[in-house]
Amino acid sequence: MFASALQPHELEDTTRAEEEPKLRTGLIEAQLELRNSACCSLLVVLAGPDGAGKGPLLFRLYEWLDSRTLRTNAYHLPTKADKRRPPFWRYWRDLPARGEIGVVVGSWYNEVLLRAADGLDDRDTFHRNLHRINAFEAMLVAEGVKLLKVMPFIAEDLEQKRRKVLERKARQFERHVLDDWGKGSLRRQQIRPVAEEAVRLTSTDAAPWLVLPAADPDYRDIAFGHIVLETLQRNLAGDGGEQPTAAPAIIPSYARKNRLDDLDLGLKLKKRDYFDRLDTAQGKLFRLSAHKALRQVPVVIVFEGHDAAGKGGSIRRMVYALDPRRFTVHSIGAPSDDEKSRPYLWRFWRRLPAPGRIAIFDRSWYGRVLVERVEGFCTEAEWLRAYGEINAFEEQLVENNHVLVKFWLAISRGEQLERFEERQNTSFKQYKITDDDWRNRAKWDEYHQAIGDMLDRTSTSYARWTLIEAEDKRYGRVKVLETLIAALEARIDAS
Amino acid sequence: MFASALQPHELEDTTRAEEEPKLRTGLIEAQLELRNSACCSLLVVLAGPDGAGKGPLLFRLYEWLDSRTLRTNAYHLPTKADKRRPPFWRYWRDLPARGEIGVVVGSWYNEVLLRAADGLDDRDTFHRNLHRINAFEAMLVAEGVKLLKVMPFIAEDLEQKRRKVLERKARQFERHVLDDWGKGSLRRQQIRPVAEEAVRLTSTDAAPWLVLPAADPDYRDIAFGHIVLETLQRNLAGDGGEQPTAAPAIIPSYARKNRLDDLDLGLKLKKRDYFDRLDTAQGKLFRLSAHKALRQVPVVIVFEGHDAAGKGGSIRRMVYALDPRRFTVHSIGAPSDDEKSRPYLWRFWRRLPAPGRIAIFDRSWYGRVLVERVEGFCTEAEWLRAYGEINAFEEQLVENNHVLVKFWLAISRGEQLERFEERQNTSFKQYKITDDDWRNRAKWDEYHQAIGDMLDRTSTSYARWTLIEAEDKRYGRVKVLETLIAALEARIDAS
Repeated sequence: MFASALQPHELEDTTRAEEEPKLRTGLIEAQLELRNSACCSLLVVLAGPDGAGKGPLLFRLYEWLDSRTLRTNAYHLPTKADKRRPPFWRYWRDLPARGEIGVVVGSWYNEVLLRAADGLDDRDTFHRNLHRINAFEAMLVAEGVKLLKVMPFIAEDLEQKRRKVLERKARQFERHVLDDWGKGSLRRQQIRPVAEEAVRLTSTDAAPWLVLPAADPDYRDIAFGHIVLETLQRNLAGDGGEQPTAAPAIIPSYARKNRLDDLDLGLKLKKRDYFDRLDTAQGKLFRLSAHKALRQVPVVIVFEGHDAAGKGGSIRRMVYALDPRRFTVHSIGAPSDDEKSRPYLWRFWRRLPAPGRIAIFDRSWYGRVLVERVEGFCTEAEWLRAYGEINAFEEQLVENNHVLVKFWLAISRGEQLERFEERQNTSFKQYKITDDDWRNRAKWDEYHQAIGDMLDRTSTSYARWTLIEAEDKRYGRVKVLETLIAALEARIDAS
Repeated sequence: MFASALQPHELEDTTRAEEEPKLRTGLIEAQLELRNSACCSLLVVLAGPDGAGKGPLLFRLYEWLDSRTLRTNAYHLPTKADKRRPPFWRYWRDLPARGEIGVVVGSWYNEVLLRAADGLDDRDTFHRNLHRINAFEAMLVAEGVKLLKVMPFIAEDLEQKRRKVLERKARQFERHVLDDWGKGSLRRQQIRPVAEEAVRLTSTDAAPWLVLPAADPDYRDIAFGHIVLETLQRNLAGDGGEQPTAAPAIIPSYARKNRLDDLDLGLKLKKRDYFDRLDTAQGKLFRLSAHKALRQVPVVIVFEGHDAAGKGGSIRRMVYALDPRRFTVHSIGAPSDDEKSRPYLWRFWRRLPAPGRIAIFDRSWYGRVLVERVEGFCTEAEWLRAYGEINAFEEQLVENNHVLVKFWLAISRGEQLERFEERQNTSFKQYKITDDDWRNRAKWDEYHQAIGDMLDRTSTSYARWTLIEAEDKRYGRVKVLETLIAALEARIDAS
């Protein structure tokens, strides 16, 4: 879920100098309008790893905005005196009035995350706390306190480097160091998965999280400014003060990166290496798939990818190594009448494998957020809520003993054209190409965006996407098989 | 929450014979229209104590409807084979298609409730399961599967009687007996509070519970028929297929009872008894309020009631027995500008007592669902969601060590008139009566309905309403003091 926030988001040297003055003018105007209209209040919640920039972002707001209607609500972990009050009491006490902007540092997430990371709360308690936060936030939003939840995010190694600097400065100037995330080695290992789960479960319609790539301070600041400005303008526009989306956590749209852009499509396998590794992998897969430890395990394998990326070929190499009595390939096309008359996930629930069986989905439930989104076969509200529904669906599978592996097969636009043309010119391959393929191809950019969103929003700790560089068919097929083998071996080791 | 479902709801002997034919005609027509339009499907979920009538209600549907588009999905607790699938798998498998009606007996609530009642799941796990159910149901509703969740409900003694009959019949005819609720003595004690909590937390906008008074089979059947018919018609009307309310659990509107109607306003105290009991109570309260065990306990006392019901007089008798350094009386009128500019609960959060202190609220947060509802000071959506928000607020207080006592002071309409007139004719009481009072009085019936809803929806296991028969001032005042004393003593005993 944080993967695309970790891609390099950087600004050109001159961009900040150009953008900042415009941004500041816009912000000051919007703040004034907020104060005069008093339509609502804005509460900015900052959370994230140390050194990612919670402090600097707070200072930016004081630099950019009129501090007379700006207030900071900063909290440490509850003291003994705090603990004598209900946990939300201090946040209620400090709520901004309509027309004001508040910034919360050390929010209601803090203790909840730390207790989970420290193992003081089990998963159910953790989830219950998150549901309570959702109820609290939904009420605030409904009552005119607009929430903007921003998590500046950096990679773990950068966090460690920056923490050292913070600590040195702290010793030097005797300043307090925020050590929310990093304290203790257990916590350090656990806080990131815990934060990811929290972001997933508390990115609601009312108050989605924005994960802000924060390695480059220029990008971080300017993107943050844009987010604050857009949020103010949206709420001032008075369209019900609604958040525009029911989206799960997203990274800001400002100059955002797509995980697909990060792939090295130049990866290749030589023919001989290919056959060596293919043979080895198929042999291994055959033995693994009959392993005793998997006899009660349902296996679900999802293939998604660009048209002509080689899903069919990869699936053929896979089933070649499987006992035909144990697997089923489900090719997912347009839904039948029977399927259309039920919730969209129904057709996949009914195709789930029994224990010990393998279901291979050639396209899947992700159609909802890909083709159905891009072609307008479902409404925006429908595909937006689908991310959360799909995550919950996959969580149920994984919690109930399924092995779940998801592949995205990626090729470049140029490679796709070559393959399309080859298909059209080869009589026995013509059946593979339809007008639909050409139509989809014309919408490459829209699909690109939809795929990026999908990868961000549905890569969860329990069901990550594996991106397959499929420009070279051999490389792609081998990576698919070896990934599946690794997943099965991991399950066998764990049993 | 179930209190008003336990009030006697009975039909006149002739009513059923008159209503049933009309109902059946309406139901058949609506079912046909559902089939033809295929706008959505209807899933009726039946849950509740044994002997309350899940079986008979199911049979009624088969009697009243065309069985060709009606299907029963009945489930036992999951078998070993079921457990190899994700818990929701079998419910997905059996979803009705658009145009069809399904009835679920032994639903997704069953195992969740029983595990909690048996102590196999702790409270956090229980709540997490309920939140998952909410997500599942919200998705179904959004996808065109309309849910009607009905809980036929009877008192515990009646349940025991009926269970004996069921068991005898079972022996006689070798039929299977549903024993979901009653098995084992631990479960029998726990299932009702557990069910109440589940009803509270899973009565969502998308799918609220209907608690059906089921002691009288005639009332039960006819009211059930009305509910099914109204649900069908509402969804056919195509107003987005939305449930009309964001209401928490409610009892059906058909011939429904109000808890206020059940009060015996004839209860009286003689003057001498009054002074005896008043003196005793005040002395006791004085000693209790200084008790060591309460030194860290915040106490919240809520007074609500009809105008002129004697809230002021009761509060005076109460504070007479309290150390003035320890209590504050908050008279809640129209909100200040400062309060209006924040969520409505803010003004109460900021008045919460510190540990060891007592806050007495002369009117309270319940204004939202009383005066604000009736006078239209807030929208329907706002007061509807307020029930859940208030329940969550009070839950936080109780979980954080507060003693919370809530009084409703009830008088009759006639008694109110006398008191109003007396106030108007007594110079030193004239300040107590305003035009507002007369206006409210003119809306007696609307208030009556709002009070009934409030008592149903906000009497929770952790914060029950105490209804005070205040027609006789003496009786009312003494009952108030003695109730408070009992609550404080209970806390001291528990500490």
